[in-house]
Amino acid sequence: MSKKVIVIGGSAAGPKAAARARRLDEFADITIIQKEPDFSMASCGFPYYIEGVFDNRNALIATPTGVVRDSNFFLNAKNIKAKANTEVIKIDKESKQVVCKNLLDESIDEMTYDKLIIATGATPKMPPFEGRDLKGITTLHSMKDSDFLKDNVVQKKVKHAVIVGAGLIGIEACEALRKNGIEVTVIEMLPQILPFLDIELSKLVENHAASQGVNFILEKSVSRFKGENGSLIGVELSDGSTINCDLAIVSIGVNPNTIIAKQAGIQIGDFGGIITNAYMQTSDPDIYAAGDCVEINHLITQKNTLAPMGDLANLEARVAGENVILGNTAVFKGTIQTGICKIFDMSAGISGFSEKYAKRENIEYVSAMNTSLDKPGFMSGQLLISKILVDKKTNTIIGYQSVGFGDVSRQIASASIAIMGKLNIDDLACADMPYAPPFSLAIDHFIASTHIVQNKIKGLFVGINVRDVKQKIDNHEDCLIIDVRSSDEFRELKLGIGEKHIPLGMLRKKLNELPEDKNKEIITYCKISLRGYEASLILKAHGYKNVKVMEGGIMAWPYKK
Amino acid sequence: MSKKVIVIGGSAAGPKAAARARRLDEFADITIIQKEPDFSMASCGFPYYIEGVFDNRNALIATPTGVVRDSNFFLNAKNIKAKANTEVIKIDKESKQVVCKNLLDESIDEMTYDKLIIATGATPKMPPFEGRDLKGITTLHSMKDSDFLKDNVVQKKVKHAVIVGAGLIGIEACEALRKNGIEVTVIEMLPQILPFLDIELSKLVENHAASQGVNFILEKSVSRFKGENGSLIGVELSDGSTINCDLAIVSIGVNPNTIIAKQAGIQIGDFGGIITNAYMQTSDPDIYAAGDCVEINHLITQKNTLAPMGDLANLEARVAGENVILGNTAVFKGTIQTGICKIFDMSAGISGFSEKYAKRENIEYVSAMNTSLDKPGFMSGQLLISKILVDKKTNTIIGYQSVGFGDVSRQIASASIAIMGKLNIDDLACADMPYAPPFSLAIDHFIASTHIVQNKIKGLFVGINVRDVKQKIDNHEDCLIIDVRSSDEFRELKLGIGEKHIPLGMLRKKLNELPEDKNKEIITYCKISLRGYEASLILKAHGYKNVKVMEGGIMAWPYKK
Repeated sequence: MSKKVIVIGGSAAGPKAAARARRLDEFADITIIQKEPDFSMASCGFPYYIEGVFDNRNALIATPTGVVRDSNFFLNAKNIKAKANTEVIKIDKESKQVVCKNLLDESIDEMTYDKLIIATGATPKMPPFEGRDLKGITTLHSMKDSDFLKDNVVQKKVKHAVIVGAGLIGIEACEALRKNGIEVTVIEMLPQILPFLDIELSKLVENHAASQGVNFILEKSVSRFKGENGSLIGVELSDGSTINCDLAIVSIGVNPNTIIAKQAGIQIGDFGGIITNAYMQTSDPDIYAAGDCVEINHLITQKNTLAPMGDLANLEARVAGENVILGNTAVFKGTIQTGICKIFDMSAGISGFSEKYAKRENIEYVSAMNTSLDKPGFMSGQLLISKILVDKKTNTIIGYQSVGFGDVSRQIASASIAIMGKLNIDDLACADMPYAPPFSLAIDHFIASTHIVQNKIKGLFVGINVRDVKQKIDNHEDCLIIDVRSSDEFRELKLGIGEKHIPLGMLRKKLNELPEDKNKEIITYCKISLRGYEASLILKAHGYKNVKVMEGGIMAWPYKK
Repeated sequence: MSKKVIVIGGSAAGPKAAARARRLDEFADITIIQKEPDFSMASCGFPYYIEGVFDNRNALIATPTGVVRDSNFFLNAKNIKAKANTEVIKIDKESKQVVCKNLLDESIDEMTYDKLIIATGATPKMPPFEGRDLKGITTLHSMKDSDFLKDNVVQKKVKHAVIVGAGLIGIEACEALRKNGIEVTVIEMLPQILPFLDIELSKLVENHAASQGVNFILEKSVSRFKGENGSLIGVELSDGSTINCDLAIVSIGVNPNTIIAKQAGIQIGDFGGIITNAYMQTSDPDIYAAGDCVEINHLITQKNTLAPMGDLANLEARVAGENVILGNTAVFKGTIQTGICKIFDMSAGISGFSEKYAKRENIEYVSAMNTSLDKPGFMSGQLLISKILVDKKTNTIIGYQSVGFGDVSRQIASASIAIMGKLNIDDLACADMPYAPPFSLAIDHFIASTHIVQNKIKGLFVGINVRDVKQKIDNHEDCLIIDVRSSDEFRELKLGIGEKHIPLGMLRKKLNELPEDKNKEIITYCKISLRGYEASLILKAHGYKNVKVMEGGIMAWPYKK
């Protein structure tokens, strides 16, 4: 008799798991049960559809050859029964049954399974704000949300939008609206946008978005939505101020959808996701789970974590789909919390730990900043500002962040493989990566990052973060700050933080102009802090004992210049 | 007393080694001796300068901030003595002396060293063709070559150019000239261009270049150059035919410059390069070497090899520069022969082994092709055609090639780290890489490549290379070929190789139209062979024992359609 597989959820993980199961068993009886009317929606594409990067809605729900993935498609191409508008209301793991309700005619149906895959996804968080039901307030999660926003944009119904929450979705939505001429205000409780980045990097992205006309309000929260005749007219903040607006997108994260799993007695983790092992198996051996509803292993901390990302949903689902057929032959190792996003002309990405995260995990690390081009200037190379983290004990790379106008994608992709592979810095420092001028510098930016942190580990220089430099200045601390760029560069742009200007080429000749006190704190920098580094070496060689390089240089300085 | 370091060579490796040495010892006495008039030439940028991607010659010899790297720059910024137009004519390793000749006034000088770094580079091969001294014949290696070619292009002196040798340099030169309206014929002895790629991938690149008007003559060699009044008028081939031309670029590889090393009794390897250990130390412990003149370790074969690439020159030099100062504290592990190039709208890259190379090394491998987009179609995703190689014994990735119109760079960068890290396929199959629609598919193309080869290793499908399918057709072998694309797709474009057309969605219903003989050889494909793969699974499930998937699908078919 053929194996009965039921998959709950038809968005990302569900169809992938079902397709994998079908490929491994032509005769299995496979059913997808989907609450929403559509299947396999490319939900990560919503912001770009709303923006108008493309206008063909079908592209969000079609195969690469243009066939819409509806019930007919699943039946004909995959021999999979796919039921839309159908909600599973109960899982009975003893009798191996699911009870589902047709949302169109409210009819109830019972189905038995041999193996069940839960891929119920997540629901956007929506705090119980006053006025949350006003017209004009939405999340950006479902096809319906996307249609609503696209309609608003296309019909030019919106003048001023407020985005609540400056994570990935919020920032992507921000670009989509702003590029359509809409005034956009982003409200974030934290002191920074893109909270997965360290703050000084996120500030660079914020500065760029602000230069594109986006208004950021940080460290404030929403206290209520204000309406008139049932429609949103403004957002009131915790400080009592009001932002007038006719649209609000709430994007403050998601909660895993686990109600039916919980009711069925399946184990739920501390973060509210379904607990899975490396086989994507839940606490019930016949029930697997994948996608935004699960908790997975973090490869570095080896603790459970939520990682609601479209790519991981697919990879988890592939494993679940194989294991329901072949019996735990495939393994999903875990996440390193890799993420990337585009905002206007900049990209920002991370893989592994930020400093913030590493500190929270009590990991001893060395970090270094690297500011340099992605490819040669003569090939229109663009700037990247990156931070690398290395585990002090193992000398392996455990984190990499990169922001900038250049090819962040290659940087984070390379780093993600290196972090997953637990590669050590000395190996990476001589990595044989693809080089040609259209693609990279002779020493790739990623390799250069390993060189810088290697120098730091070898004790060749002491770095100081731009944040700490700013604090020293704000505190009027006594230290000598030296800008070692050329006179032309200095004339064009300077930080104006009380710095002394000595071009690197003059430094050896001007040592007599420096303080006699060899213990005096000296901070050196240049545009990217390569010359700043060389200056620190010269000073050290001449006896100065407290010389620091401002990491990343002027280009990493996120404050007013 | 300060340490005396002499560096022979001022192009790529030399200045990098000298700069690293300086950073580690402010008081060392460091001299660079350079035969050519310029220093630190970005020679990989020559083709783009000739093409006109940029026209500022100084960009090739200046720092990112625009300062030309001449003797003054080295003295002021680095405190390094840099002597141009000076040739080292003898190394005396007993007395630790070099003898050098000023090429302008022919004066001879002797200098002693504590540590010596040889970075003499390589010289383009130039066979003793008749007519090789005619005006109009050049290599593309030196600043002089670059100036000559730029001048020819700018002054529109050339109508028809012949490029001898279709390796990296030849192919880059080909684009540079063709984009300036010059007729270009490329002559290559081998049956393919870009010989580091497997032939079916290189054919796709060749087809694209041909579509841009480049004329390729393969499997022919040059017998002589023909001239008139001292100027080139044509190239005569081995078959007696003549290609008329007024310019010829000979780009058939380089030979390491090792004469003075050899004369000094330093050990030279089988490939003609200076033998170095992981510290970049030669057979003489006080003499190091780096760049195109050395042989280095191949990380997979653990044999010595030549790898004359600009990025490796820099990485080797950084190690040599450190070790002459600190004494063998840094290590250069070796190459995996990573390379990448752009040709018109396509890119082509490789890291690790091609099939050809793996066979030569008698390594048992499994390979798989992956044809898919680099990012979603709705984000203007472009096609990539890639081949992955996995070591049969260790299950680790040992090779990755990618060609296409999309982001090859990220693919090869990711693969290079994975190959260096000896990552296994099951880990890579669930890698947490950066995903967002502007950058990749939900399942990144690289990860998808690991999925396909994993499926092959698990025995889910048997692949057949497009070359082997072509051969079967040419040999009129008896097999059933099935194209499983949709009717619309089939109408638009078909291979015309005697294939039967059954859309995947109809296959299960049309099994009765298939041969009764379950041992009949059947080959399935679609556009990219994902549906082709699913078709093979259906056929297998229904008892067909000899079903193969044409790997890469129609998009990987390099022959006439």
